[in-house]
Amino acid sequence: MEAAAERGFDYHYVVQQQEMQDFIVKCAIKVGCDSVQAESIGRMLIYADERGHFSHGINRLHVYLRDLSTKTCKPNGKPKILKRKGATALVDGDNALGSIVGEYCMNLAIEIAAENGIGWVTVNNSNHFGAAGRYGHFAADKGMIGFAFTNTSPTTFPTRSSQKALGTNPISIVAPANGEDRFALDMATSTVAFGKIEIAERKGKDCVPSGWGANENGIEEHKPEIILKGGGTLPLGGIEERGGYKGTGLCQMVEILCGITAGGPFGKNIREWTGTVQKADLGQCYIAVDPECFAEGFTNRLQEFLDETRNLEPIDPSLPVRCAGDFSKSHKFLTENVGGLVYHKSQIEYLHKISKEHNIPFFEVSNFKAPKT
Amino acid sequence: MEAAAERGFDYHYVVQQQEMQDFIVKCAIKVGCDSVQAESIGRMLIYADERGHFSHGINRLHVYLRDLSTKTCKPNGKPKILKRKGATALVDGDNALGSIVGEYCMNLAIEIAAENGIGWVTVNNSNHFGAAGRYGHFAADKGMIGFAFTNTSPTTFPTRSSQKALGTNPISIVAPANGEDRFALDMATSTVAFGKIEIAERKGKDCVPSGWGANENGIEEHKPEIILKGGGTLPLGGIEERGGYKGTGLCQMVEILCGITAGGPFGKNIREWTGTVQKADLGQCYIAVDPECFAEGFTNRLQEFLDETRNLEPIDPSLPVRCAGDFSKSHKFLTENVGGLVYHKSQIEYLHKISKEHNIPFFEVSNFKAPKT
Repeated sequence: MEAAAERGFDYHYVVQQQEMQDFIVKCAIKVGCDSVQAESIGRMLIYADERGHFSHGINRLHVYLRDLSTKTCKPNGKPKILKRKGATALVDGDNALGSIVGEYCMNLAIEIAAENGIGWVTVNNSNHFGAAGRYGHFAADKGMIGFAFTNTSPTTFPTRSSQKALGTNPISIVAPANGEDRFALDMATSTVAFGKIEIAERKGKDCVPSGWGANENGIEEHKPEIILKGGGTLPLGGIEERGGYKGTGLCQMVEILCGITAGGPFGKNIREWTGTVQKADLGQCYIAVDPECFAEGFTNRLQEFLDETRNLEPIDPSLPVRCAGDFSKSHKFLTENVGGLVYHKSQIEYLHKISKEHNIPFFEVSNFKAPKT
Repeated sequence: MEAAAERGFDYHYVVQQQEMQDFIVKCAIKVGCDSVQAESIGRMLIYADERGHFSHGINRLHVYLRDLSTKTCKPNGKPKILKRKGATALVDGDNALGSIVGEYCMNLAIEIAAENGIGWVTVNNSNHFGAAGRYGHFAADKGMIGFAFTNTSPTTFPTRSSQKALGTNPISIVAPANGEDRFALDMATSTVAFGKIEIAERKGKDCVPSGWGANENGIEEHKPEIILKGGGTLPLGGIEERGGYKGTGLCQMVEILCGITAGGPFGKNIREWTGTVQKADLGQCYIAVDPECFAEGFTNRLQEFLDETRNLEPIDPSLPVRCAGDFSKSHKFLTENVGGLVYHKSQIEYLHKISKEHNIPFFEVSNFKAPKT
C-alpha cells in the first residue's frame, strides 16, 4: 500500500520501460529461458517498479536468474491442468517461473469464472511470482474481482512460538471500480515484509516500530540489527495482546488455501528463500469472481465507497485518507509523468553488476527531474 | 480465538443446553417468531456460549428480541434466491433473522459446491447473525472449507481517518482436519471487538494495549473510558506505522464481498448497532469449497499442519502455541465436562431481567464446580 514516494525515497535516474524489458529478456535468455518466459519475468518486475514496490521489482532480478541458472526453477516449464470440475482447477506448475504460473493460473480462473461465475485455481510446484497484487489486475481488466495468494519461505514467528514456521504469506485482492479506478490490496500477513527491516538498518535507524520483528527466539525486538541476526517478522498485529494471533490466523489461512489445498509443502517445511538446491515448490491460489452474477451496479457502488473513503476527514490534513492501491497509483502516475521507471542510484549500480556478470550490454538511463506539481 | 477461560472469567452457574434453548424459544415466540425461527436463534446463541464467545451469545438476546418486537427485523422472514449462475447465488435475506439467513445461505453454498466445487453466495437485506465462525462449521461437517463474512455497523476508524466509517467486519474460515479437529478462524478485522474495551472498563482497568481503540477524533487512546465516550476501535495492527492500513484493507475487503457485491448499504451508511427504526440491511457472503476438487489428502495435510503448529517450541512454556479455534474447543470441552453451559453470575442476573420483562418462566441453574484436571 505504501509506495516509495511516501517512504521518502529519492530518485536519481529514469529508465524507459522498453529498455528495461529488453535488458531483463536478454539476461533471462542467457540463463536458459525462451523469449516467452523471459518476457514474462520482465512484465512481473516492471509491474512492481512502476508502482514503487521496489522490493518486488528489478531489485530481485538476481534471485530469478540464480534459480534459473542453478535449474532449481525450470527455465521452460509449462503448467498443466491436473483436475477440472465446475468452478475449480488443480494445476501442476511444472516448477516453471512464478510469473508464468501466475499468468497461466489467473487467466484460467478468469476463463472458468466467465462460465461459472467463479474460477478457483490452486497450483503446486510453483515459484516466487513477484508482487501478488499483479495477478488480480488481470481479473479486474475483465470486470472481475481477482484474488491471489501464495505461501512463502518461513520467516514469521506464529504467536507464542520461538520458532519461525510461517511465511509472510500475502493476501491480494483487486476489484474494479469505474474507469481505471480500483481497490487493490496487496499485503503480507506479517506486519511488514522482511525487506522493510533491512531498509531501516541500512538507513542507520536505531529501532523499528512495535510489532515489526522479533529476535532469534521469537521475542519482540525493536533493534533492526538484532532482528536481522536470525530473527524474523511478527504476524500482523504484533504480539498476542495487540492482535498478533489474528495475523497468525490469516497467515495460516493463506497456507491452507495454498500448500495444503494444492498438495505441496507447507509451513516450516518450505525451503529457505536463499536455497539453491531444493526447488521452491510453492503452493498458490488464484480466484476470479464475476460481480455481475450478484447485484447489478457493482462498479458504481465500489466507486462510491472509494470516493467516500478518500473524502473522510483526516486526523492530520497533510495525510489524506487513502484506499488500498492509491499509493501505487500515485507512483505509476509519476513514472508516466517523467516518461519511465524511476530509480535510486544504488539500484542502477546493482543493475550494472548484473550486466557485467551476465555479459549483457547496459542500457540508456537519463537523469531524474522531479515534475512540477 | 481467545476463549473466556483464558481471559480469566470465573463461572458461578451451569445451565443445560436444552433448558437454555427452551427459554430462548419461548422469548422469541413471544415477540412474534414461529418455532422454526425461534429455534434458530437458540442454536446461534448457544453455539457462542458453548465456545466461550459470550459477547456473541445469550448476552445479546435482548438485541434480537428488540429488533423483532420493534419489527426492524421480520419475525418470519424467508430468504429467497434472486439470481443463480454456476457456482454463485444472490439471495434476498427478506430482513429475516441473521441466523435464519446464515443457515439458509451456507446450506445453499454447500449444495452448490457439491455440484460445482465452489458455492459462493451473497445476500443483502440480512441481520446480525451472531458469531461468524458458526456457519463455516456447516461446511466442515460435510468435509468442505467454509467461509462467512458480514459487514457491520460503523465503529472502526480507517487509517488516518477522524471519522468511523467501517464495521468490525469479521473474516471467518473453518477447515476440516481428521476426526473432529478443525482450523476455525473467526476474527473481527478491528484489533479487538468493542466489547473487549467495555469489559476492560468494567474491570476497572486504567488502560488497554496499544492498537485497540481511539478517542472520538480517531487518535489512538489507551484509557477505556475515553474510547467508550464516542471513540471507536482501530483496525487490526493499530496505527499506520504498525500495519493498521492492512487491517483497514482487510476490513474494506470484507465490505466489498458483502454490502458492495450484494447491493446493500456499506461503510459509514450502515445503521448504528443500537438503531430500532431503520432495518439493519446487512450484506453477507458465504463460501463453501470442496477440497476434494484439488489435491487428494487435504484433511491429512491440515492435521499435520495443526499438529506441527501446536508442537512448536513456545517462548513461554506455560503458554503453548495454539491454532485458530483451539480456545473455543477447550471451552466446549469444559461445558461437556460439567454437563452444561457455564456462566458468570452477572449473566444469570441478566437473564432473570429478560425473564421478567417478557414474562417467561425462569429455568433451573446449578452451581458451577470446576472439574478436576
